Amino acid sequence: MKIVKVGLLGLGNIGTGTYKTLEMNKAQIEAAAECKIEITKILERDVDRKRDITVVPEQFTQDPDSIFQDPEIDIVIELLGGIEPASTFMLSAMKNGKHVVTANKAAVAANFDRLMKTAKENHVDFRFEASVGGGIPILNAITTVLRSNQFEEILGILNGTTNYILTQMTEYGLPYGDVLKKAQEKGFAEADPTADVEGIDVANKLSILMALAFDTYVAPEDIPTTGITDITRADITDAAVNGCKIKLIASAKKTENGLEYSVKPTRIPNSHPLATINNEFNAVFVRGNAVDELMFYGKGAGPLPTGSAVMGDVLEIAKLCGR
Amino acid sequence: MKIVKVGLLGLGNIGTGTYKTLEMNKAQIEAAAECKIEITKILERDVDRKRDITVVPEQFTQDPDSIFQDPEIDIVIELLGGIEPASTFMLSAMKNGKHVVTANKAAVAANFDRLMKTAKENHVDFRFEASVGGGIPILNAITTVLRSNQFEEILGILNGTTNYILTQMTEYGLPYGDVLKKAQEKGFAEADPTADVEGIDVANKLSILMALAFDTYVAPEDIPTTGITDITRADITDAAVNGCKIKLIASAKKTENGLEYSVKPTRIPNSHPLATINNEFNAVFVRGNAVDELMFYGKGAGPLPTGSAVMGDVLEIAKLCGR
Repeated sequence: MKIVKVGLLGLGNIGTGTYKTLEMNKAQIEAAAECKIEITKILERDVDRKRDITVVPEQFTQDPDSIFQDPEIDIVIELLGGIEPASTFMLSAMKNGKHVVTANKAAVAANFDRLMKTAKENHVDFRFEASVGGGIPILNAITTVLRSNQFEEILGILNGTTNYILTQMTEYGLPYGDVLKKAQEKGFAEADPTADVEGIDVANKLSILMALAFDTYVAPEDIPTTGITDITRADITDAAVNGCKIKLIASAKKTENGLEYSVKPTRIPNSHPLATINNEFNAVFVRGNAVDELMFYGKGAGPLPTGSAVMGDVLEIAKLCGR
Repeated sequence: MKIVKVGLLGLGNIGTGTYKTLEMNKAQIEAAAECKIEITKILERDVDRKRDITVVPEQFTQDPDSIFQDPEIDIVIELLGGIEPASTFMLSAMKNGKHVVTANKAAVAANFDRLMKTAKENHVDFRFEASVGGGIPILNAITTVLRSNQFEEILGILNGTTNYILTQMTEYGLPYGDVLKKAQEKGFAEADPTADVEGIDVANKLSILMALAFDTYVAPEDIPTTGITDITRADITDAAVNGCKIKLIASAKKTENGLEYSVKPTRIPNSHPLATINNEFNAVFVRGNAVDELMFYGKGAGPLPTGSAVMGDVLEIAKLCGR
């Protein structure tokens, strides 16, 4: 069997989860891909950190070009996060003929057209399932088999931190500040929660979903976005009295006036499937003109669910380049 | 652009829904497949029935071999239903080098190994997304990107008729017989509902899911199967008192003693995502060792949702044979 070689950029939490997913499920992944898959080089400064995986010191490099210019490497996985240098690294990898897989919603949303165009020009695959909905295989579905539909509407709960906060506020009647603090203590919210609670993270994901489902790229900063910081206990009680829950909803809908889109706290009737998505879970609700309504539900974050999505992309690419 | 030609076996409700899905979304499907797709021949006795689609009389044939032996046809869609002659027809199509797409759970479950083997021997694709969960793209997910996981458990609500009956019994406190009659009047249950209410239809679908997710084929008749005909109002009330709903659940789970599987009415805690799946909707709940829990929700039947799944399969095959 051919060996498909992979260069990994970043061995933080998600990188470690991805590495671990391959370690745990190597036999099964290689059987499905019909080739061997090996992570041969890792760009990472912190070589000493204890990780629950088997990495030999020789795999680490501090020089990204040693990965991009390695003729043996077929696939580059980018898990650095942030727009730069991640975007530049992905473009370099593509220009060197490497297929690219990433979980980086900020970079994909910021540079969607350029990344897609560069991948096409260089005849390489570019996959980013993990960038939207973590482990939920939504991008694969809407770009392959569900293309038999014209999409009419997409609604998503796409951020685990804010969904956790809203769920706890709803279930225990707690104020926003108290729940945020609790979420930070539990590791569900970052020390600086701005990108999550202001809806910026969700806007990135909606930008990617719209580009794929509606062939319409809208930059994240051009999506009308409201976060959850102003939601009060009174708002939540008032919604409950009216048979609704408040969720931070990413929405894109075809209308007579074109595509309408936003990220904002929204009342969802208790009877709607999205009302049942609680705590750190994510869900994407899709309406197509043939399939009618679909919903995909799962863990929107975490090292292993994200690793599942990243390795799923690697597997699909390896199937082709392993031949 | 190359033209990929399709022969269609059966133009009943699902056949018409499939034809209509292609008519409605032709431009988009062809753009995604990067080829033209044309249904050129249709095996169907009832040529006079009014259908809301544009079929020219010359497309109809009464001779299946005129489709299997047509060197111009690339893909055969089988929508006759029932084990025979559908299975024999699919095998003939494969032996003549045609890719095959079907929605026929009875035929796929009964002859899984033979159909898969014959497809492999003849280097053709064999896809059957619509056979499990109607429009829900679950088979594509578990056979492609989710292969980065080892599956631990699959739970499904896989039959719209029985889920409708149980939902109505639960919501309105009605007895089984009354709801069945109502379902038959509404067209949600067949005149002879045996295959649905006795769980036979669900056992077929679980057989297919297990073969794909666990690489373990179990014939439907070897799956311990209990239907919903003995469920009483008292059972449902007693479940409700204990915070549960009764659902007809297809279950397959890896245990220390190997794979355990069954189809039977099961108490699902109200907090479980499957408890929220009501009426004619289906859902498949999957647990993988990396991705953790996922759920896929959508319409399990109906001409257009099923047509969406069939045309999704056709699209994926056309992508490859259109090159």
